[in-house]
Amino acid sequence: MIKIKKYCYGTCFLMSIAINILFSIYLYAGGGDKNQEISYRSSLTWSEKAAAEAEAVAAINCSGHGRAFLDGLVWDGQPVCECYACYGGTDCSEMTPGCAADDDSGDPIFLEPFWIQNAADSAVVIPGWHRMSYRFDDNTMMSTELEYYIRKLHSIVGNAITERRYMVFGVGSSQLLSAAVYALSSENSSSPSNVLASIPFYPMYEGQTVFFNSENFKFEGDTNSWQANNSTNHMNAVEFVTSPNNPDGELKKPVLVGKTIYDHAYFWPHFTPIPGPSDHDLMIFTLSKLTGHAGTRFGWAIIKDKDVYEKVSKYIRVADLGIPKDTQLRVLKLLKVAIKEDGKPLFEFAYNKMKERWDRLASVFTKSTRFSIQKRHPLHCMFFNETRLPSPAYAWVKCEREEDEDCGAVLEAGNIKGRSGSTFTEKDRYTRLSLIKNQDDFELLTQRLTELVSTENVSVGTI
Amino acid sequence: MIKIKKYCYGTCFLMSIAINILFSIYLYAGGGDKNQEISYRSSLTWSEKAAAEAEAVAAINCSGHGRAFLDGLVWDGQPVCECYACYGGTDCSEMTPGCAADDDSGDPIFLEPFWIQNAADSAVVIPGWHRMSYRFDDNTMMSTELEYYIRKLHSIVGNAITERRYMVFGVGSSQLLSAAVYALSSENSSSPSNVLASIPFYPMYEGQTVFFNSENFKFEGDTNSWQANNSTNHMNAVEFVTSPNNPDGELKKPVLVGKTIYDHAYFWPHFTPIPGPSDHDLMIFTLSKLTGHAGTRFGWAIIKDKDVYEKVSKYIRVADLGIPKDTQLRVLKLLKVAIKEDGKPLFEFAYNKMKERWDRLASVFTKSTRFSIQKRHPLHCMFFNETRLPSPAYAWVKCEREEDEDCGAVLEAGNIKGRSGSTFTEKDRYTRLSLIKNQDDFELLTQRLTELVSTENVSVGTI
Repeated sequence: MIKIKKYCYGTCFLMSIAINILFSIYLYAGGGDKNQEISYRSSLTWSEKAAAEAEAVAAINCSGHGRAFLDGLVWDGQPVCECYACYGGTDCSEMTPGCAADDDSGDPIFLEPFWIQNAADSAVVIPGWHRMSYRFDDNTMMSTELEYYIRKLHSIVGNAITERRYMVFGVGSSQLLSAAVYALSSENSSSPSNVLASIPFYPMYEGQTVFFNSENFKFEGDTNSWQANNSTNHMNAVEFVTSPNNPDGELKKPVLVGKTIYDHAYFWPHFTPIPGPSDHDLMIFTLSKLTGHAGTRFGWAIIKDKDVYEKVSKYIRVADLGIPKDTQLRVLKLLKVAIKEDGKPLFEFAYNKMKERWDRLASVFTKSTRFSIQKRHPLHCMFFNETRLPSPAYAWVKCEREEDEDCGAVLEAGNIKGRSGSTFTEKDRYTRLSLIKNQDDFELLTQRLTELVSTENVSVGTI
Repeated sequence: MIKIKKYCYGTCFLMSIAINILFSIYLYAGGGDKNQEISYRSSLTWSEKAAAEAEAVAAINCSGHGRAFLDGLVWDGQPVCECYACYGGTDCSEMTPGCAADDDSGDPIFLEPFWIQNAADSAVVIPGWHRMSYRFDDNTMMSTELEYYIRKLHSIVGNAITERRYMVFGVGSSQLLSAAVYALSSENSSSPSNVLASIPFYPMYEGQTVFFNSENFKFEGDTNSWQANNSTNHMNAVEFVTSPNNPDGELKKPVLVGKTIYDHAYFWPHFTPIPGPSDHDLMIFTLSKLTGHAGTRFGWAIIKDKDVYEKVSKYIRVADLGIPKDTQLRVLKLLKVAIKEDGKPLFEFAYNKMKERWDRLASVFTKSTRFSIQKRHPLHCMFFNETRLPSPAYAWVKCEREEDEDCGAVLEAGNIKGRSGSTFTEKDRYTRLSLIKNQDDFELLTQRLTELVSTENVSVGTI
């Protein structure tokens, strides 16, 4: 029955009867294949206003080159379009001439269209009184339901063993990287642990270790250089193993024999074939590179040892008394979509998008002798049950000419902005280009790269 | 117009015309005082399913002694009731006999009824594609809209100067407490800063400082004891000033002349009269004790000095690349409700609740010579424009009898669980009792206290 108003008498009551009779005829006449939806519609009370607001904002026209958000800037009572890079105007329809292709950040917006396609299943309504307590009903700060779905996801994808393992949630994987260093480090200040990674490596490892400046550890840089001077004693080493690696996408293995932190941010079938489930002592994953929700800041650690688990948990508790419950609820909703049909819709969408980008990118680079990108080797993917090439999140570009020592500058002269090799403690002859931003960014990147490569034979050395 | 189906031909089309004609007559006949709502209803598409889910869960009957949540445990396809302490059964209708009154935690559930009353305005719908990027449009990690509403709230309440001040968001005020210590500490490891607070103090200050074990600072405990040995040089001191204080509700002032971190978690008109706006170098606030959303983990710092602001910002960036965008969106929605009618509905609800609890509590304690609670002094409140007694979040109970050295144990024998004085580096002759939990908890507390006090003259020393 369609409930029009809570309090309804006289004319109102008669009208509602008439409407409901007609509605029943309509359903009987076969118009009712959306019964469920219509019956939902009839019963909404307090959530309707928020739902209408969200839909109104989502309907704002930004020409496909921008988006309006519920918490965006408001102009004349309406949230305004936030235009993607290189687009402007109130409806983002104006392209900025000569705008640089900005492929610096690892913003995973390439997955945004998937979530728009799955709008109904991925939306979440948070009531004003949702989870006001510090703790869940079982006295923890982590949602049991969410933990269950994460374990289920890993079992579907086959990228990590989670049976008989502990789990800890963090504010992004970022927080867990730091928590892991604390958990694995020496408790004796007089012999602090040595924190290491293999060049090229994600700069956050060094950034955090140096910033927190604990008496329990110190950053020692590259594993290979360090090993040369410390060939025997690795017991006090804590090594980051980033697999696939950021920036170059390689499936890395530890160099040392000390403790390891496996950063598996990119260990998903759209970036790499999954050769089998990872089964290490401490593995860290993030929602960001799985579903594309970097802004949600949610990561998790899978931990074998109880003592390490307790230390990582303590870090999260001491740092900020747990992860926002709102975030946990949203992640739960997103993961319910992610595991639908055994993950096929999400991972096929994501893989196809990455493959298409790599195919186009590779065809540009084959025409070049000045620039090269990382070699990719086919591997059998247990998830797709097929041998495939990896399609990493980043192109790791090398400038091959001797004089092009600063590859970032060479690309910038071609109106392309990347992230310099030295950011990853590598030579500046390398530059990282992000392939996971939105479609406009990728189109501009290929256009600029094509232009740059096309000048190679015509005007060697003039760019 | 009521839109029944996206694709609608033949009978369906005729029926929808008929329904819409009747609907127009209904509106014309004066049934349309909810026009806005009905027009919303007609246009919902992708958000409806999530809205219906949320309403269905909210409608689950938990007898007023529990609540079902969207991310709660699921039984037979339905989220189950999570019962408050001392209640059980599938609908939480069964009271556990002899159950202890648990008044240990600072869970601010006393505000839950306010948000249920304001359900329509405080609900938020998060679309699947909401803010996937690490950053907002202005390249920051903080919502400009949210910052605007926080400043507006302070200006309405009159509890802090925010003009020409910087702001940083954190995962709860917890994270900002630690960020502030890092920001104010010595950059020279050979002379680390001394971090201090005045007894009784919130244990997190010590917990964090010791845990992070930085070379830049060390925890030195109580300001008064430390001052006795360091009467002249306070330049390297970082003092926490908790005002109102947790546990005793006092409006504190610094003891030393070094750098200060003002923890203003409880500086809201429901806990204390607001004598005027706070105007210190570094002030920290939290949503938790303002709106009751502890589970949301959201806090903010207001900072005078640019250099300090940049250091606090850097801490947040390095620790976890910013605060979840989902959380920021929800907080925005809650604060829009908080500032309605110049904050009157929220703060009157909250103050009345706290005042009623204090009146009842005080009347129990006036009958006791064995137990006392903190003295409260009337002050003029700029917000309510009236002289009022404070109504702190906690009762700071002292056991007056010489033999009652462990006040927690005395209360526990009376079936009341508090937080021991030693948790706050005070003697165990004191115990903190939380007055901000839900109504059931408070009712049980007063009942148990009344019983305990009533035995004083009958059976001195036997409890």
